[in-house]
Amino acid sequence: MSGSLYGAVEAGGTKFITMVASGPDHIAEQARFDTATPEVVIPQVVDFFRQAEAQHGKLRGVGVGSFGPVDLDPQSPTFGYITATPKAGWSNTDLVGPLRQALDVPVAFDTDVNAAAVGEHRWGAAQGLDTFIYMTIGTGIGGGGMIGGRLMHGLIHPEMGHMRLPRNAEVDPFAGACPFHGDCLEGLASGPAIEKRWGTSAKQLGEDHQAWQLQADYLSLAVVNLVCTLSPQRVILGGGVMHQQFLLPMIRERTLKLLNNYVQSPAILDHIDSFIVTPGLGDKAGILGSLALALD
Amino acid sequence: MSGSLYGAVEAGGTKFITMVASGPDHIAEQARFDTATPEVVIPQVVDFFRQAEAQHGKLRGVGVGSFGPVDLDPQSPTFGYITATPKAGWSNTDLVGPLRQALDVPVAFDTDVNAAAVGEHRWGAAQGLDTFIYMTIGTGIGGGGMIGGRLMHGLIHPEMGHMRLPRNAEVDPFAGACPFHGDCLEGLASGPAIEKRWGTSAKQLGEDHQAWQLQADYLSLAVVNLVCTLSPQRVILGGGVMHQQFLLPMIRERTLKLLNNYVQSPAILDHIDSFIVTPGLGDKAGILGSLALALD
Repeated sequence: MSGSLYGAVEAGGTKFITMVASGPDHIAEQARFDTATPEVVIPQVVDFFRQAEAQHGKLRGVGVGSFGPVDLDPQSPTFGYITATPKAGWSNTDLVGPLRQALDVPVAFDTDVNAAAVGEHRWGAAQGLDTFIYMTIGTGIGGGGMIGGRLMHGLIHPEMGHMRLPRNAEVDPFAGACPFHGDCLEGLASGPAIEKRWGTSAKQLGEDHQAWQLQADYLSLAVVNLVCTLSPQRVILGGGVMHQQFLLPMIRERTLKLLNNYVQSPAILDHIDSFIVTPGLGDKAGILGSLALALD
Repeated sequence: MSGSLYGAVEAGGTKFITMVASGPDHIAEQARFDTATPEVVIPQVVDFFRQAEAQHGKLRGVGVGSFGPVDLDPQSPTFGYITATPKAGWSNTDLVGPLRQALDVPVAFDTDVNAAAVGEHRWGAAQGLDTFIYMTIGTGIGGGGMIGGRLMHGLIHPEMGHMRLPRNAEVDPFAGACPFHGDCLEGLASGPAIEKRWGTSAKQLGEDHQAWQLQADYLSLAVVNLVCTLSPQRVILGGGVMHQQFLLPMIRERTLKLLNNYVQSPAILDHIDSFIVTPGLGDKAGILGSLALALD
């Protein structure tokens, strides 16, 4: 595989995953590291790539998909940084610089969710589409995607987890878990929000627990808002919470009810099962997406 | 001006505005027609352009910005149509075909709000930006804009007026005026929604009426959701309801409160007055935008 190998980093709030590969079916090396401090993790990542290069030859580039907020503006002096994150020790951390310096390769950089979107576009559930959303529902909720064939950036980058949704306080008196906004989408429907509301982790709630209809309601409202705002050709829902496989059909059904035939596209009305989907790359969407960033 | 003249049509639910011009400062002809039936209005529009051509010479192209939903897919057999509109008589109406046939010129076609966005980008409040939103708040609420320098299209086109927002039923027991969704953004904050809630038209409500804080709340929630979903560099709010000039500063203030310093961009935190603005072209954003569509 020498000569066509790329590096990939999925920089998450809990763990960093690294990979050296030429494609999803040609993976040379893979590792994971706890997201300790930048002083610990970044050298571990650099070492991983150096060892891989010693064994397999020079990398042609590295792609990094990171938790945020991040600076994506190539003109900015802090391009490639994680900026004002509440995660202790990580505020104002240069991710791209150390990799570029140590490895002397081009480094592509984007949000974790945009990276996953690129991976899904190249190898997964968004092949051939030019306008679609990838949203992850796990420890946090975030979203990215492509609009008109280009990754979503804008002023900074989307923070889809923080959109505001209707909450019926009689049905759901839980005031939300987001330290910034209370009952925004992430505050209502992330894994920790579910756990805080019901006093037990999402995994332990049975399929018939009322938690899931509420969860489907909030995620459907989010999908409806994405449909109304962006008119995507497809919405991909990933992340740990979506491992509950009964959730996806509930979200599809509820989304159709909420849209109430207003958006008259056969892609929605007749093919909801291929309109709202889980990632084609499964839990590898993030790391393979970072690889796809490097390949692009 | 002969030789560089373009035609423009702003196709609205109440009136059609037509123009022949080479730019905002060089307008040769302008007219308006009631939105009667297609059989009445379309020939009026064709006649307007024919007379203008007889006087000023051949048009180089025509731009049409239309109320929706519309078919924007150039590959579709119904490209250039108004599709499933609830407006009586207008469902499945070919707007582009008759103009192209009668005038034998290229016809550019988009939503009214995307047209306004193009106009604002060329001559108004969005010059030099590549990611921004134009939202109109009037008889209905709609939004469009550019993402990464390209007009927002996607599966169909955005229907931003139909996003769902939190409503505190104790503060606002009004269940909303949207026939499809009840209390979506348009159902809560369009001109007719205000009138239905308070029993009098928006224009007659004094500046100190509680209607306006509620209105600012809903429009701020919409702006927050746009910021979280799209990360625009600017949000332009137009339409009749925004003629209430005290509303804009209320929306800016409330948006900052709702975001609660989460999106740490100086463009928002330090320059909210240039982040949320009214159209640089005022009420001419629509028709000049249609002209800009033709020029592009």
